[in-house]
Amino acid sequence: MRKDKLNELKRYSGELKWISNELVHDNKNRFVSVIPRKFILNNGMVIPREQILKNNIDGSAVIVVPRVKNELLVTVEPRVFTEKKIAVGFPAGYIEEGETPINAAIRELREETGYVPQAMTELDAFYQDEGISAAYNHIFFADNCEKRYNQKLDPNEVVRYMTFTYDEILELEDMGYVSGSNSKLALCRVKKYL
Amino acid sequence: MRKDKLNELKRYSGELKWISNELVHDNKNRFVSVIPRKFILNNGMVIPREQILKNNIDGSAVIVVPRVKNELLVTVEPRVFTEKKIAVGFPAGYIEEGETPINAAIRELREETGYVPQAMTELDAFYQDEGISAAYNHIFFADNCEKRYNQKLDPNEVVRYMTFTYDEILELEDMGYVSGSNSKLALCRVKKYL
Repeated sequence: MRKDKLNELKRYSGELKWISNELVHDNKNRFVSVIPRKFILNNGMVIPREQILKNNIDGSAVIVVPRVKNELLVTVEPRVFTEKKIAVGFPAGYIEEGETPINAAIRELREETGYVPQAMTELDAFYQDEGISAAYNHIFFADNCEKRYNQKLDPNEVVRYMTFTYDEILELEDMGYVSGSNSKLALCRVKKYL
Repeated sequence: MRKDKLNELKRYSGELKWISNELVHDNKNRFVSVIPRKFILNNGMVIPREQILKNNIDGSAVIVVPRVKNELLVTVEPRVFTEKKIAVGFPAGYIEEGETPINAAIRELREETGYVPQAMTELDAFYQDEGISAAYNHIFFADNCEKRYNQKLDPNEVVRYMTFTYDEILELEDMGYVSGSNSKLALCRVKKYL
């Protein structure tokens, strides 16, 4: 692992950690909602299941593994519920209504980093948490990326980005910086393309 | 893929698919709840984040990859929000309060299948959906499993189980039967132990 890279990551990490938090009592503009349903199976059994929605839709997302020259581009974001309070991952975001997964992937990559790919390959698709959600996520490999635009984030987003070699990212995974299922599965899937 | 195995899977699949469902209007005994919070970051930024809880705790889970002779044991369960309505996966379940991950893994394996392992190895741990949850899941490889008990399920659970070779499970993944992030990551991680 290059020292300057690790220092840069630690700087972002310090900046993005939360120092305090409080409950919000306002019931408006909730992002996550829960719909309780009762399902009757073919064998006659009746089972209750609750479904979470994000912004009133499934919350299906795209995860993009961008290659820039011979390195992969990763994001550093606050992940307030994790032990490190931040996580290293890949550019990702929710698919908008009517949008195709590949277009969502190109859009999210551009918004979060300003990079544009020359080739996109879908690596896998999967349910995020199938017991409580219909969210179906897609992983893309975005090859030969070039910086063309400025970062353009939503008001509640804060995303830093940097590049590492694949092996350095595995080191970051061992150190606990890469901790989410989406990023870990993306790392598994992209290996054979590198 | 052996034909008798695929036929057995299709039989379970037919049995466990839902044929109708309705909204539940009763507000009691909800499994999933949402807690909205506001976090102040070290850089001064204020970001809202909502956290989901399952049964009022994080909802951290264990996933167990059991080997029985030279095959892996998989579960077939209704997954009502998925396209196939069922999924093939591994024995899994939530860690109870005060329980260690490895004990939860042994308990879930026993409850869902009646099998007992001779050796347990932790393969990985990860956040299930780190943007909205603190759920931190652990994957175990349970080797040399033997059938010792009867299945013992919760009232709302229905779990069938069977064994396949690793390559057959990859075929099932290609066919869309293995569709959840937990199962897919577990398949990645167990490969080098087989």
